[in-house]
Amino acid sequence: MRIAELLASGERNVEVVAKGWVRTKRGNKNVAFIALNDGSTIHNIQVVAETAAFDEALLKSVTTGACLKVTGTLVDSPASGQPVEIQARTIEIYGGADPETYPLQKKGHTLEFLREIAHLRPRTNTFGAVFRIRHAMAYAIHKYFNDRGFVYWNSPLITGSDAEGAGAMFQVTTLDVANPPRKEDGSVDYAQDFFGRSTNLTVSGQLEGELAAMSLGLIYTFGPTFRAENSNTPRHLAEFWMVEPEMAFYEIGENMDLAEDFIKYLVNYALENCADDLAFLEKMYDKELTERLRFVIANDFVRLGYTEGVKILEEARDKKGVKFEFPVFWGADLASEHERYLVEQHFKRPVILTDYPKEIKAFYMKQNDDGKTVRAMDVLFPKIGEIIGGSEREADYDKLVARMQEVGVPVESMQWYLDTRRFGSAPHSGFGLGFERLVLFVTGMTNIRDVIPFPRTPKNAEF
Amino acid sequence: MRIAELLASGERNVEVVAKGWVRTKRGNKNVAFIALNDGSTIHNIQVVAETAAFDEALLKSVTTGACLKVTGTLVDSPASGQPVEIQARTIEIYGGADPETYPLQKKGHTLEFLREIAHLRPRTNTFGAVFRIRHAMAYAIHKYFNDRGFVYWNSPLITGSDAEGAGAMFQVTTLDVANPPRKEDGSVDYAQDFFGRSTNLTVSGQLEGELAAMSLGLIYTFGPTFRAENSNTPRHLAEFWMVEPEMAFYEIGENMDLAEDFIKYLVNYALENCADDLAFLEKMYDKELTERLRFVIANDFVRLGYTEGVKILEEARDKKGVKFEFPVFWGADLASEHERYLVEQHFKRPVILTDYPKEIKAFYMKQNDDGKTVRAMDVLFPKIGEIIGGSEREADYDKLVARMQEVGVPVESMQWYLDTRRFGSAPHSGFGLGFERLVLFVTGMTNIRDVIPFPRTPKNAEF
Repeated sequence: MRIAELLASGERNVEVVAKGWVRTKRGNKNVAFIALNDGSTIHNIQVVAETAAFDEALLKSVTTGACLKVTGTLVDSPASGQPVEIQARTIEIYGGADPETYPLQKKGHTLEFLREIAHLRPRTNTFGAVFRIRHAMAYAIHKYFNDRGFVYWNSPLITGSDAEGAGAMFQVTTLDVANPPRKEDGSVDYAQDFFGRSTNLTVSGQLEGELAAMSLGLIYTFGPTFRAENSNTPRHLAEFWMVEPEMAFYEIGENMDLAEDFIKYLVNYALENCADDLAFLEKMYDKELTERLRFVIANDFVRLGYTEGVKILEEARDKKGVKFEFPVFWGADLASEHERYLVEQHFKRPVILTDYPKEIKAFYMKQNDDGKTVRAMDVLFPKIGEIIGGSEREADYDKLVARMQEVGVPVESMQWYLDTRRFGSAPHSGFGLGFERLVLFVTGMTNIRDVIPFPRTPKNAEF
Repeated sequence: MRIAELLASGERNVEVVAKGWVRTKRGNKNVAFIALNDGSTIHNIQVVAETAAFDEALLKSVTTGACLKVTGTLVDSPASGQPVEIQARTIEIYGGADPETYPLQKKGHTLEFLREIAHLRPRTNTFGAVFRIRHAMAYAIHKYFNDRGFVYWNSPLITGSDAEGAGAMFQVTTLDVANPPRKEDGSVDYAQDFFGRSTNLTVSGQLEGELAAMSLGLIYTFGPTFRAENSNTPRHLAEFWMVEPEMAFYEIGENMDLAEDFIKYLVNYALENCADDLAFLEKMYDKELTERLRFVIANDFVRLGYTEGVKILEEARDKKGVKFEFPVFWGADLASEHERYLVEQHFKRPVILTDYPKEIKAFYMKQNDDGKTVRAMDVLFPKIGEIIGGSEREADYDKLVARMQEVGVPVESMQWYLDTRRFGSAPHSGFGLGFERLVLFVTGMTNIRDVIPFPRTPKNAEF
């Protein structure tokens, strides 16, 4: 039995075995109290060892970080806050942890310090909680889509296409960078690269996802994506996980309905399945955490055109004296401060902003009849800003090609993508959810490096 | 309602809407029969259109591959093999498909041809079935582990480590390959690369997974991994998905128990949830498919030492005259033909082979007391050969370091990994399941390129 099960067990005065890592040891001459944790729950189980019954050297080796196998009797605990404890009969030390060198001693550590020992930080309460919640959110994503007939679709990560223009890309190669093969004109001869061409890591699985939606109907991707942008912010990673559903026959309204239902489902799943971990994070980091989560579930998201959104921001600036760092005007790409003003100050609710100027959105978005805007939708959240970006897609072949030519997307190399519009085109929509942004929101953590096991950022690919 | 739901509906003589792609159209002067599919099921719904009630040009545009919205009445179908059909009242063509250029006409296509149009092949019965089964297997993997308290763990894909030696790696870089920055000695200055060092795509998430198991207890990864090997075979991909559970406190026997239970769960899940798709693949490709799946579930896997396995193969060669292409001797890495002989000819059951010579296995496997073998385990399957590879891990710091030095794994740069043995080490085990090999086995397909949406292989990164 794992410690979560032992703590929940209704049995008493039975022989049990517990295995886990020592979080703390305290006590006196007669008795040692050992808090043991095995990662199955935020709670430790207390092991009570009569010092007289154990070898002194053995008990001395029971230090923070050591791994133990304990046998003993599960009994009611006289201590408050824990239903049971184990009266130890035997203790075996699987592996010790030298107090002189083990970095995770009892005292609290800063999140910055823990980032430097990312390989050990899941042994802390904070990161145990964060990574169990991260798991719960990933599982809830798969469950949500599976229950609704969506097919999990694995778009390739290595791609010969760099068409979406969603961001700078990492090159993938087996050429000797120090001495690459060259063509007569001196340029690199990518015909000799592994794939016979230059390849990159994908910035989005969407385009391949659209192919799947135009055959399987309802699909979603959920996997790593990459941006080689030199962004050293608490909101950006070079390698992050993205969820991208794509739905045949969905127009923009149905796309918004799905996005709102989806994210409410996830937040509710966390509240129902991660109560202990959320309570810990609330106590330690964010007193309003569960209140904020409940608020998102309880309220309809505001649905608002970009044009009206800009008006509200301009009025806030001109009439209420709100100061923005970045300029606001029709046509501007909204900054996080603008998004958060709408959400946190003006509406005090999540906002779905739609119908953005086409110039600031991707080529594949459905063009509105006004000639100026596209059927984009961004879901804006408190604290996070944009958590979802999506759109109805342009289903008309001619309009799509014209827009690709306007913005310089190579039509010739994208024939496979255009085939969805050439053969059996249909209205369809989709969106992307940045998984780490979701986990940030649900955990209340404030730095994206703290919600992924091993963050990849500029100048950092440790572990 | 999607077509799967319409076909399962108990309602009759009600107005319905169906949207999907035309698979076939036949009929006569008076009536057209349109088979419509929306990807939700292998089955089409039949749309019956009285020619007199529709514009002739519209009906002419209803060609294979066109996308339609049909309204009409859901009625009992007089035709055999389909419970219902739709008597069409209106037909809207979302997007046509020119019969002159649309590649997927009625006639059957070879799998080789369909690989060339991988962006359209999910519109065929075969690939609809394969990708729905692939989805079901992915979901079952998450469900299996979630139900058992495992945490989904995302090991990084971009890695500075190349220590496992599991295979050749792809380099990831933002340097200008044509003209990389150089140090004074002429070598490439990777300090100027995105991550400030040379980085690669991971060949396995295991090492980081072990870090997680030594804190969260039970974890699994499920994500893309990469091998830059020039293997043009029906069993190898350069980019493939791998499932890697890692369990604290599991010894090799429990590891085998889990692997067997896991794979039986998955196969059973397919039988229970993918019956229609399996029936189609059985009929078209593999008459023994479901029989083979049932057989795997019904029988205990053989558990056999490598040494005994080699004896059986040597006897087969020496006494039964079995011809093997590759040599068999103690110390040899078994080839697929050897594995399949044990499974298909000798035992006629899946086999878990254990205790391999340490020379042919990775440095992190637990060393047996004989000094010659390690606690490796490979699960060998009919038709597939190795479907799972795993081991108990070496938990002893000194033994692990000694083995790393023997085989030339850089101890200095692996301190983060060694910290699991330095601080709170514990017995632990894990294994890797090649996801596409599982899907191959469950679908009965024979080329791994046919069970992943867009296969990446040498000289091929199309779409």
